[in-house]
Amino acid sequence: MSSVLPTTLLHNNKLLVGENSSMADQTVKSTNITAVESRVTLQDRIKRGGHRGGVLWFTGLSGSGKSTLAIELERRLFNIGYNVYVLDGDNVRHGLSSNLGFSPEDRTENIRRIGEVSALFANAGFIVIAAFISPYQADRDRAREAAGDGFHEIHVDADLSLCESRDPKGLYQKARRGEIPEFTGISAPYEAPTSPEFTVDTGAMDVDKSVTALVEYVAENFIQQQE
Amino acid sequence: MSSVLPTTLLHNNKLLVGENSSMADQTVKSTNITAVESRVTLQDRIKRGGHRGGVLWFTGLSGSGKSTLAIELERRLFNIGYNVYVLDGDNVRHGLSSNLGFSPEDRTENIRRIGEVSALFANAGFIVIAAFISPYQADRDRAREAAGDGFHEIHVDADLSLCESRDPKGLYQKARRGEIPEFTGISAPYEAPTSPEFTVDTGAMDVDKSVTALVEYVAENFIQQQE
Repeated sequence: MSSVLPTTLLHNNKLLVGENSSMADQTVKSTNITAVESRVTLQDRIKRGGHRGGVLWFTGLSGSGKSTLAIELERRLFNIGYNVYVLDGDNVRHGLSSNLGFSPEDRTENIRRIGEVSALFANAGFIVIAAFISPYQADRDRAREAAGDGFHEIHVDADLSLCESRDPKGLYQKARRGEIPEFTGISAPYEAPTSPEFTVDTGAMDVDKSVTALVEYVAENFIQQQE
Repeated sequence: MSSVLPTTLLHNNKLLVGENSSMADQTVKSTNITAVESRVTLQDRIKRGGHRGGVLWFTGLSGSGKSTLAIELERRLFNIGYNVYVLDGDNVRHGLSSNLGFSPEDRTENIRRIGEVSALFANAGFIVIAAFISPYQADRDRAREAAGDGFHEIHVDADLSLCESRDPKGLYQKARRGEIPEFTGISAPYEAPTSPEFTVDTGAMDVDKSVTALVEYVAENFIQQQE
């Protein structure tokens, strides 16, 4: 499609008429009910977008670089032409999960909701980059189950000592002083992925190299093979 | 973009290097940290997609035609080239809201979550068609607040008697027999919108005409003016 839709097209658009509509077999009082087509499928969206939908699930300690990598990767993929969207604390914790705290139960429900939303975006043809500490393997497994085939667990790996030395928001300092309860890595567990699809070692690779590796990973896994 | 991304482009993509990165001012142990770009903005997405993002919030009684209209409208808009996605009971009640029932509190939380997810999709440049009974005005107002500017309340209007005569899933019959508690219109209230942006009277207009009216409404409200 062109970058701006011609409005004439909107008013003169020709329609294909099909049979598949849930209203087709209803008794309705209004006359001349015309069923047009069926739900837009994932295949329709893949054909339009040129790539599969799916989830890149980033998991790692606070300060491991998840959000930075997610945002840089989103920009790189977007510039290439992918449909891509980041879910992270910035757009989830104040909205969808605003009624949840950081207890184990609330963390689990938070990740459950994000997993379901990721599945919706993937179903809309998007590559979702979900960047959350998501410390429990069982929670990540449930997100995988919600998303189906296109789920890729990406371990954003960095030693606790490195993350703590970065401490961009001063959270580790606060956690060490006991001012933040249940802080992952300090006073709450982090279960590293047992078999992630991909690992980025942000202690060994800089952001640019990490993102380049992820772009290649995406190309290998989300582009439809032509031959 | 073309319908299939050339994979060569993916590996040779040139990048613009900017200053805006949350990692740029962090002390990190790895060397040569390169901040590339900032988060993809809604404006970037609008430029790519050729239309605004936003929410078409369909509200109406069970059997008023919300889902049918939503799915037909999605198909029409998709075929024209819009980025569009339907949220309805089919893809929300078994996932995101699977841990909610139909009490007033649970309905409110259900609509709250859907409102937040709609806002995320709108922020990703999509036109979201949210098709839910959503009987309470306060809940719809909260969804409007979550979405911001691009929220359009669409009343899918049909008399209770008409909806009951359609009764595609036999729900009204069950509700009349008392087998479904808190059924909107029978044993639970429906608060019709006080000032919806648009009303579709599915008792007076057939599906095809209703969808055509909605396509025109979308063109008027979601296409960027050129002059």
